[in-house]
Amino acid sequence: MSMFHEINTPLRTIMTPGPVEVDPRVLRAMSTPILGQFDPAFTQLMNETMEMLRDVFQTKNQWAFPIDGTSRSGLEAVLCSVIKQGDKVLIPIYGRFGHLLTEIAERNGAEIHIIECEWGEVFEQEVIIEEMKRVQPDVLAIVHGETSTGCMQPLDQIGPACRELDVLCIVDAVATIGGTDVKVDEWQLDAVIGGTQKCLSVPSGMAPITYNDRVEQVVAARKKVERGISTEADQKDVLNPIRSNYFDLSQLQDYWGPRRLNHHTEATSMLYALREGVRIVLQEGLEERFARHRFHEKALIEGVKAMGLELFNDVPWKLPMVTCVKIPDGVDGESVRMMLLHQFGIEIASSFGPLHGKIWRIGTMGYSCRKENILFVLAALEAVLLRHQVKVQAGNALQAALNVYESKNIVVKS
Amino acid sequence: MSMFHEINTPLRTIMTPGPVEVDPRVLRAMSTPILGQFDPAFTQLMNETMEMLRDVFQTKNQWAFPIDGTSRSGLEAVLCSVIKQGDKVLIPIYGRFGHLLTEIAERNGAEIHIIECEWGEVFEQEVIIEEMKRVQPDVLAIVHGETSTGCMQPLDQIGPACRELDVLCIVDAVATIGGTDVKVDEWQLDAVIGGTQKCLSVPSGMAPITYNDRVEQVVAARKKVERGISTEADQKDVLNPIRSNYFDLSQLQDYWGPRRLNHHTEATSMLYALREGVRIVLQEGLEERFARHRFHEKALIEGVKAMGLELFNDVPWKLPMVTCVKIPDGVDGESVRMMLLHQFGIEIASSFGPLHGKIWRIGTMGYSCRKENILFVLAALEAVLLRHQVKVQAGNALQAALNVYESKNIVVKS
Repeated sequence: MSMFHEINTPLRTIMTPGPVEVDPRVLRAMSTPILGQFDPAFTQLMNETMEMLRDVFQTKNQWAFPIDGTSRSGLEAVLCSVIKQGDKVLIPIYGRFGHLLTEIAERNGAEIHIIECEWGEVFEQEVIIEEMKRVQPDVLAIVHGETSTGCMQPLDQIGPACRELDVLCIVDAVATIGGTDVKVDEWQLDAVIGGTQKCLSVPSGMAPITYNDRVEQVVAARKKVERGISTEADQKDVLNPIRSNYFDLSQLQDYWGPRRLNHHTEATSMLYALREGVRIVLQEGLEERFARHRFHEKALIEGVKAMGLELFNDVPWKLPMVTCVKIPDGVDGESVRMMLLHQFGIEIASSFGPLHGKIWRIGTMGYSCRKENILFVLAALEAVLLRHQVKVQAGNALQAALNVYESKNIVVKS
Repeated sequence: MSMFHEINTPLRTIMTPGPVEVDPRVLRAMSTPILGQFDPAFTQLMNETMEMLRDVFQTKNQWAFPIDGTSRSGLEAVLCSVIKQGDKVLIPIYGRFGHLLTEIAERNGAEIHIIECEWGEVFEQEVIIEEMKRVQPDVLAIVHGETSTGCMQPLDQIGPACRELDVLCIVDAVATIGGTDVKVDEWQLDAVIGGTQKCLSVPSGMAPITYNDRVEQVVAARKKVERGISTEADQKDVLNPIRSNYFDLSQLQDYWGPRRLNHHTEATSMLYALREGVRIVLQEGLEERFARHRFHEKALIEGVKAMGLELFNDVPWKLPMVTCVKIPDGVDGESVRMMLLHQFGIEIASSFGPLHGKIWRIGTMGYSCRKENILFVLAALEAVLLRHQVKVQAGNALQAALNVYESKNIVVKS
């Protein structure tokens, strides 16, 4: 028998683009003794979570609930419930997670059309709209905040264009939900997938999604009730049934809706975590929370620049919660990251594909996005770079960040 | 904005066939601050969890790790990674969860062959083996412990027969893992899926699985590395690629194995919970734990019988951790369940399909399987039945259960 000790982890300062530090109130919520899934005390918590999720998504959609899995489970649930074999799916790609959408859509039998731009850029919305007119896809799938490049794609014109061209608009807002505006209704997005482990500061393991009537109609046409619990009225032949049982939104609706038809066993403790996470978001206030993310971002950026480093994503379309720093010539980026981790207990990220070895990515998301963390990561990065023989002007970074912090008369509540 | 109070749940005595009460040590483990997914401190916890899972599954398989989702996510991950379009899959059905296997296999393009027996029965192993010879399936998918009927299917002859007939043997051990023997290697089972929210007393939200080289070969032939992180060497045309990205075992192996290729973001807190849960199982000892389940089962059964009630599953193939009680004629089973919940805070279960309204199901799983709970549920059931004008001999149930408990000279450590 292999026996191990109880969990005894080091306490890290997590400044990656996710997973980030979990709010201590969320950690406490998870230690609540569980309830049965059909206990009225539990279904009430499910309903409350749906209601709060609607506010976080800024939507009046009936359907707003989590998929029990990590963020990409939410992407797959929406894509596999919507995409039928041979459907045309247009995917504009500006980083790694666009490729993930391609990967999932392709496995679900889609005819994929992609347009790509260089990593670090985003698309003019008009370019995407023109491509939609040309391709006439059934679905547009697009990333809102691309953590691999630190860029954010404007969507406010794309949603309405999709409506006009009768294209379903599916948006990966895993990185942005709870950290910056994701205006589901105003932008006319048909389905949006959020993530827990980023700006919501809830552990990975659930994927909150929302979708509107247009998506529900597509899903309803493919609906099958599970054998073993179906009634005769439920039995019918279905064209293009959804290929997954676990991710079948039509079944999940019956579980989250008033029919409460048994599907999976809801992940109780993660539901507690998500409920507490979105409660904290609404308690802080969406506007206030987004402003907090921008404020700490500014302190970080000023500090990084004062150190003499360059940003990779110093652009109008910068993702506010991910700051990408160019690795100075001749510096081993991984060695810097390892020293940050081993000497300071700070985690920052590298990147993928064409940006691997070129940039560091510093996340300022949710509970990790607070003053002490920004100041500590700047101090540590300066010290580690000096240790790597990089000529940085010692002391400037913290002074620049403090200037930002002191520019507000109030002490910022972290 | 919809604002709600902090979580403030009633404390229940959960005596269903899952989800059951979570061990308090597991609840505490979940409140541990998280680590990044590639933090060496975290990957070590992942490796330790794999090692302990192997012991719980009684296997030397290299692969033993959780799928990040509820139990049925584990079923779907294995089935969709193994089943190719048109594969013949034989599914013996003796309750609801056999139908679920059919549902998942069918959606993955399988040609389904089923044999059924009445709910409450199991199959003679020879019957299944003969059917395999006739059908010559690629895969046999079967439930080990059927919670809907409280029956357990013997598998010790089926595994070796599958090996001989070159059939992959996939077993749903969601209800049995950690509560009774699941001898993966000795019974020659090729892939086995366990559940967390039953005998492991971990919340729902992860599905530990294990599989051997025979399964790995099938999966490897369908392997595709994800776009956006693949190298040129990874790019090749694949016949019959796996239809899901989230459930692609070939990608999950690369994530859980030494290559540590990014896939999802591991559900950190659930991994802490699972690690603590399997640690507790091994600390207790498999044999001791299985004996404890049988011992409390005996006390419950004696108590139920002494009350004058009949068991539905008083058979040699009874599932030790689920006791099914026939609802006496003229009694509204749901009214009894509701009174147990509202007056005593005790949850027991009804059943599905042909057994709905016919039986109650009382679970004795994991942390819920302890003396206080058994005695409380017997006392409460007696009182509630008296309240429903059922002529039970007051007091007998607890005396019978106490006889069992006193038959051991030692006080049973619950």
